[in-house]
Amino acid sequence: MLQLMTLDLAKKAAGYKAVEHIKNNMIVGLGTGSTAAYFIEALILACKKGLQITAVASSEKSQKLALLGGIKVVDLNEVSHIDITVDGADEIDAQKRMIKGGGGAHVREKILASASTKVIIIIDETKFSSSIGTVKLPIEILPYGSKITQKKIENLGFQGKWRTTQDKPFISDNGNLILDLHFPIPPSSPENLHLQLKNIPGVVETGFFFHLAHTVIIGHKDGSTRIL
Amino acid sequence: MLQLMTLDLAKKAAGYKAVEHIKNNMIVGLGTGSTAAYFIEALILACKKGLQITAVASSEKSQKLALLGGIKVVDLNEVSHIDITVDGADEIDAQKRMIKGGGGAHVREKILASASTKVIIIIDETKFSSSIGTVKLPIEILPYGSKITQKKIENLGFQGKWRTTQDKPFISDNGNLILDLHFPIPPSSPENLHLQLKNIPGVVETGFFFHLAHTVIIGHKDGSTRIL
Repeated sequence: MLQLMTLDLAKKAAGYKAVEHIKNNMIVGLGTGSTAAYFIEALILACKKGLQITAVASSEKSQKLALLGGIKVVDLNEVSHIDITVDGADEIDAQKRMIKGGGGAHVREKILASASTKVIIIIDETKFSSSIGTVKLPIEILPYGSKITQKKIENLGFQGKWRTTQDKPFISDNGNLILDLHFPIPPSSPENLHLQLKNIPGVVETGFFFHLAHTVIIGHKDGSTRIL
Repeated sequence: MLQLMTLDLAKKAAGYKAVEHIKNNMIVGLGTGSTAAYFIEALILACKKGLQITAVASSEKSQKLALLGGIKVVDLNEVSHIDITVDGADEIDAQKRMIKGGGGAHVREKILASASTKVIIIIDETKFSSSIGTVKLPIEILPYGSKITQKKIENLGFQGKWRTTQDKPFISDNGNLILDLHFPIPPSSPENLHLQLKNIPGVVETGFFFHLAHTVIIGHKDGSTRIL
């Protein structure tokens, strides 16, 4: 087995810890990203040992991962509710306000989280921050008129950069573009900024997540975890 | 020539009147719908008589119509601004608050209007209302998790119906679904309702338009027009 980088060890610790919250017959929402992937890995192992669950995925990537491991994955439109969603975050503060979307799936992740009875956020210790906004804020934007939408966003005083993949525009699972917004200093009111951004036609969703995380599992580099 | 229905005469009167506002070298935004189509028809005639403009369209339908008439249409991302947009509305009140989206293009129409120096709304007299909300409110919604999004919207106390075309789900030019919301009585605060709806993950945009109409041209059944 490969020796894990210490940060990977922290991610793995959080991901594996989260599986303890999954019970038989639950409908489980799967997040996206490197930490969520450890949760899916642990969930696959638990299912192989007899745990019976149904999953819904926030991205085609996570869906594929779960299906490969033999997990039953259904379309979100086939379930009436989700018992629990486990997902990562790019940054989270003590008020459990988050920035998500580094993996490009924050819109689906937000739909999933807001439809879930319980949301567990799993992070490595470096993702915990005194104030959110030290990482870039992903904003999903409709391709139609995207340059004008970008201009309106930048008129708020921030600089944005279109996300690319292999030198081409990154396209989300919803068929949209992602503008990553850089903050010179963390915004004083992420809540107000979110509303301002959402009010710009062409903005589908921001990466700000408020009032969505119920439990936060923080993984440490020594493999230990603590709950927030 | 076919004898026009009196309502068509009112639409045509408004559409043709709007062309008087178009000057040489303007970048013109084209709305969508039956009244906007009359404006495009009048614009085509004016261009054949020598008017030179560049157009951007809010829908593939309007783009096709303009192109067929020989108008130069470019992608919205190719222009830095729009001088004037001419579009219809499903309903408008004395405060120029509107409901749009009957044609399924309200998201692009809103992007276009919000990027325009001037917006002229052209309507037949039946579209003017003392309070908006007597017509259905179109809401564009991401297909992912659409049933859960619908449930959240209906939990606000309204009933929605998915728009269909030829017994199949209607798909917008942005690849999304449209839920038409029915109000038993017009909402007391469309502004608040808009914010509540926009705050639901999965909602791309509502058909409420505020602070976007500069001039309203109302066409009457006798072929006369008046300005609001």
